[in-house]
Amino acid sequence: MGAETLSRENNHNESADRPRDGGAIPAARVGSVEQAAPIGEDQALEILARARTVVDPALRAAVESMPESMRRVVAYHFGWREVDGTPAEADAGKAIRPALVLAAAQACAANSRAVESFAAGSPGAGAGAGVGTGAVPADSFAVNSPAVQSAVRAAAAVELVHNFTLLHDDVIDRDVTRRHRPTAWRAFGATEAILAGDALHSLALRTLAEDSHAATGPALRRLAHCVVELCDGQQADCAFERRSTVSLNECLAMAEAKTGALLGTACAIGALYGGADEAGAAAMDAFGREIGLAFQLIDDLIGIWGDPAVTGKPVGADLLVRKKSLPVVAALCSGTAAGAELAEIYALDRPLTAAEVQRATDAVERAGGRAWAQGASCERMAAAIEHLSVAVPEPSAAGDLLALAELVTRRIR
Amino acid sequence: MGAETLSRENNHNESADRPRDGGAIPAARVGSVEQAAPIGEDQALEILARARTVVDPALRAAVESMPESMRRVVAYHFGWREVDGTPAEADAGKAIRPALVLAAAQACAANSRAVESFAAGSPGAGAGAGVGTGAVPADSFAVNSPAVQSAVRAAAAVELVHNFTLLHDDVIDRDVTRRHRPTAWRAFGATEAILAGDALHSLALRTLAEDSHAATGPALRRLAHCVVELCDGQQADCAFERRSTVSLNECLAMAEAKTGALLGTACAIGALYGGADEAGAAAMDAFGREIGLAFQLIDDLIGIWGDPAVTGKPVGADLLVRKKSLPVVAALCSGTAAGAELAEIYALDRPLTAAEVQRATDAVERAGGRAWAQGASCERMAAAIEHLSVAVPEPSAAGDLLALAELVTRRIR
Repeated sequence: MGAETLSRENNHNESADRPRDGGAIPAARVGSVEQAAPIGEDQALEILARARTVVDPALRAAVESMPESMRRVVAYHFGWREVDGTPAEADAGKAIRPALVLAAAQACAANSRAVESFAAGSPGAGAGAGVGTGAVPADSFAVNSPAVQSAVRAAAAVELVHNFTLLHDDVIDRDVTRRHRPTAWRAFGATEAILAGDALHSLALRTLAEDSHAATGPALRRLAHCVVELCDGQQADCAFERRSTVSLNECLAMAEAKTGALLGTACAIGALYGGADEAGAAAMDAFGREIGLAFQLIDDLIGIWGDPAVTGKPVGADLLVRKKSLPVVAALCSGTAAGAELAEIYALDRPLTAAEVQRATDAVERAGGRAWAQGASCERMAAAIEHLSVAVPEPSAAGDLLALAELVTRRIR
Repeated sequence: MGAETLSRENNHNESADRPRDGGAIPAARVGSVEQAAPIGEDQALEILARARTVVDPALRAAVESMPESMRRVVAYHFGWREVDGTPAEADAGKAIRPALVLAAAQACAANSRAVESFAAGSPGAGAGAGVGTGAVPADSFAVNSPAVQSAVRAAAAVELVHNFTLLHDDVIDRDVTRRHRPTAWRAFGATEAILAGDALHSLALRTLAEDSHAATGPALRRLAHCVVELCDGQQADCAFERRSTVSLNECLAMAEAKTGALLGTACAIGALYGGADEAGAAAMDAFGREIGLAFQLIDDLIGIWGDPAVTGKPVGADLLVRKKSLPVVAALCSGTAAGAELAEIYALDRPLTAAEVQRATDAVERAGGRAWAQGASCERMAAAIEHLSVAVPEPSAAGDLLALAELVTRRIR
């Protein structure tokens, strides 16, 4: 298993291999719903595996409907085929977004009176099943009720959108590796990757549109709107790399658009299929966005202080390439002497030496960038849980979503 | 006013300035519905102008909803802004597709019992208005009934899809001019053009999804499916340029996907909003596709035999760049000595001389490529009219669609 990124752009697709850095990364606090079931890595991984199992047939069926000219590129990107068309079983990504859709649908259904209709056809799956344990019956996603089928289709649509943006971002960023293989544009050419991405984009929205569930219209509008946000975030990220100064607020807005928007949309869409009203969906959207920002902050910390032995990347990897990550921008905007020293190093018109990277690392810390990012990620996680308690007041119903939030922000693999 | 292309790819965006070549181009025959109103250039241009007037506010409102990072590129592409953001009134294209949506909606509404509800709120506009004259009241699109508002939104969605593909195709084909201005990627960079195209794509489908008309679901599925076809067509066109041999059937399939699919989809979507059932929509789709192919055949003839004085391009422009257009592929596949001679010229590993272009031109003609394309365009137009008579049996209701078909295939400007 391997690299997966939570952001629209893919500067992180290598770093996604890094396991959590226990030293630098603040443990997320579950706060007001701490009384919910203890959350473990095994549980989170089981939720992901189950989501993959349930969504995979919908993903494959959707891709199967494409003409071969598009399918060969998309199936390669998903790890289902080699470049020459022979079947493969390569890494298709963690599928965190579809898992969030399904977990949000289940949580909202369990939390609401809609639970009976949502779980119709599967006695035992639903509201009561996880109470007091946080555990979810293994067959809880195998229900064939129309509402669950619709949620699965929506989960597939979200994953298709995510993958369309990866195809395009790899072209834009000229990234050569994704999930341990050459990127699609490296394997097939930029034209093929752009067109396959376009086709996948339409396929995603069509997959969502292909049923008459009451949630379909609102879900489609949210997903389409989210794509515009993702584009805005990727555009800002590219633009920041060319600018000498970026404010912390600009940087946070970019991270929300690039990383938070699709996690939020996944949760909101799931909520709609779980019977939530617009207010419930909005609270779930906010939950997902905060998780996304908490993730980004932690990812950025790992990009500076991650252990090369576990990340497989050089010491201070992000500083070496002068990336304007959140802790760096916080330091640059701190008005401190250390921030000015960092700016000087970033302004050098030549590759940085190991000593300079070390000085830059120290400068980010002395300027308060590290402490700020650690604190901000804790605050984001606390805010996420606050939003979750609004969307899903019943703690026992929120177990899977909390487990996924833990996994996302602590990068359990 | 200026260049507009009917195909997804834009090799023709220069040639779109060419007025019809009266000598080489067969006049389209209106066939079985010839008894309908006489069709003139003025009428067709009036239909287009009216459609632009009606759809423009919906287009601008949709684009206005985008974040500035995307809007600046899209508004430039539409001719509404200069690169620096100052307002402009440049060419936004002919808007043939939205005109087809509206004309198809009106024709189907006029043809069916749905006319009363479709035209509700506008006494005089609708079924009876054009009977015997083919004339359409000037206010027929100004109706504020919900059904017409929905059709206008759908027309805008189709135009947004068309323009998203133009943004991407210009990047893919490295085309530098569109509608007499630098292409968006030349003005803003490829990253900006790709992302603005992605955002426009989502915006298009969201624009369509933003109402609860019964036709919205089927229309959205058709439009999303059409995008996949457009991608397939553009991919094939790019692939053909790298291949030494292409069959005529492959070439026709490519032209249908690249050029016919969106015209067909525009007509089918209009039909759905006009109250047609799936069979009616399918017949309208077939009508639009045949028009698209007739257009492509004629465009390809102009690309070889168009008068440089009126096209502004060199003699035998398409042959000079060794384009595998339909008459060329017909000649290459003819099994004649002239076809073999053409293949030899196309295989030369250096720029062609004027004499060689002339020899190639003669070879296409001697191999039967010119006569085939002329005959095929007539057949396509006849087939289009056949399909139209199925979709809209009442001749008086079909006037606008026939005028638009004339305009498309004879390239009235």
